[in-house]
Amino acid sequence: MNLTLVIGNKNYSTWSLRPWLLLKAFNIHFEEVSVSLKDDGLRDRLLEFSPTARVPVLKERDLVVWDSLAICEYISDVHLEGAGWPHTPIDRARARAITCEMHTGFNALRGAMPMNIRAKRQVNITPEVAQDIARIDEIWSAHHHSGWLFESFGITDCFYAPVAFRFETYGIELSEAARQYQHRLLAHPALKSWVDDALKETEIVDADEAGEPR
Amino acid sequence: MNLTLVIGNKNYSTWSLRPWLLLKAFNIHFEEVSVSLKDDGLRDRLLEFSPTARVPVLKERDLVVWDSLAICEYISDVHLEGAGWPHTPIDRARARAITCEMHTGFNALRGAMPMNIRAKRQVNITPEVAQDIARIDEIWSAHHHSGWLFESFGITDCFYAPVAFRFETYGIELSEAARQYQHRLLAHPALKSWVDDALKETEIVDADEAGEPR
Ligand SMILES: N[C@@H](CCC(=O)N[C@@H](CS)C(=O)NCC(=O)O)C(=O)O
Ligand SMILES: N[C@@H](CCC(=O)N[C@@H](CS)C(=O)NCC(=O)O)C(=O)O
Repeated sequence: MNLTLVIGNKNYSTWSLRPWLLLKAFNIHFEEVSVSLKDDGLRDRLLEFSPTARVPVLKERDLVVWDSLAICEYISDVHLEGAGWPHTPIDRARARAITCEMHTGFNALRGAMPMNIRAKRQVNITPEVAQDIARIDEIWSAHHHSGWLFESFGITDCFYAPVAFRFETYGIELSEAARQYQHRLLAHPALKSWVDDALKETEIVDADEAGEPR
Repeated sequence: MNLTLVIGNKNYSTWSLRPWLLLKAFNIHFEEVSVSLKDDGLRDRLLEFSPTARVPVLKERDLVVWDSLAICEYISDVHLEGAGWPHTPIDRARARAITCEMHTGFNALRGAMPMNIRAKRQVNITPEVAQDIARIDEIWSAHHHSGWLFESFGITDCFYAPVAFRFETYGIELSEAARQYQHRLLAHPALKSWVDDALKETEIVDADEAGEPR
């Protein structure tokens, strides 16, 4: 096997974290290539790897797959015999709906509370951000009795993992059931090793520094 | 079978068009429920159907699937034995990457040139919009010799179909190879029947009326 995943700074890059976590959690061997998300020259730097000038990008021999969701689908399809998603078609559909909601939605939350693992901050919670938080609380509160969102850890959990960090950074309070799920995520060994790496980084990406110290 | 697809106004609703086209193109029987996208009371009206207050939504017995891509995946998975995507894992990965690029990207183009099938308009083409157009031209120019983006008509074509209308409405010039693909799309019988329905509508959604007459 000859898999390479190109990712951004671990402190900041939410989209990179998602497929990285899937690969790690399922013990799939891959090489990691890091690209800085600092502003100057960013587009040209990223165009070397991806036609969309974005990370993550997965490479396997001649194949280049861009976009976090397309990468996770590919990994599940080719390397996990479908195990990235739940077993039943009904749960698979629900898992994809919740995953696609993250893939395109929560723009208010994403704008106001960038992932910034090493920081503790406070930001202004507008009604739109509060609505996004409430919706995520609803999704997390309905987690499966496995502790994960569905019968076992999968792509949907990977898609919500960056939000667990955001809620820590910005001190967001959740309902008890949602908080349980958040803690389950944060205790995942693969996620902990991402944090260890993130805390070793020193580069500051200004665009992702939001809020006031708390 | 007992499928219902909830959609917005056909003149305007790009996300509704995508799964609708997949269902029609593959002759899958379904019921259509239309919801107006007019501004007043929109969120409450949509929350009756979907937890995200967005269309499209697919219903099949107890199952509710929101998000255009999750719906298309479900249709392919359960009703088409996978035929919504190409046969080989490599092409499947490429098709999903291009589809996911549309699912999350092209924001400049989407903002400047809303789908508005019955109109002929001109808008200011900023550098960001020009970049989006160039990228779509690149994707379309690389179409398969089948005439579609991959070996046969599928989800990826459905995802780019609304753009074919946008380029008509706003008079966007394409390279010869991209134009061929655009015309192939516009000639698809299912897409033509969507247009027929759209032209019968009279409701105006102000948020989607952009540009000057031409
Ligand atoms: N839809 C893409 C989004 C990828 C994305 O926006 N990645 C960010 C880093 S987390 C990026 O590359 N930003 C660079 C830029 O926007 O110029 C995905 O899911 O992979
Ligand atoms: N990611 C969603 C986006 C759906 C979406 O934004 N739909 C529009 C109509 S085309 C909508 O419901 N707008 C209502 C609103 O934004 O309030 C999908 O792919 O289905």
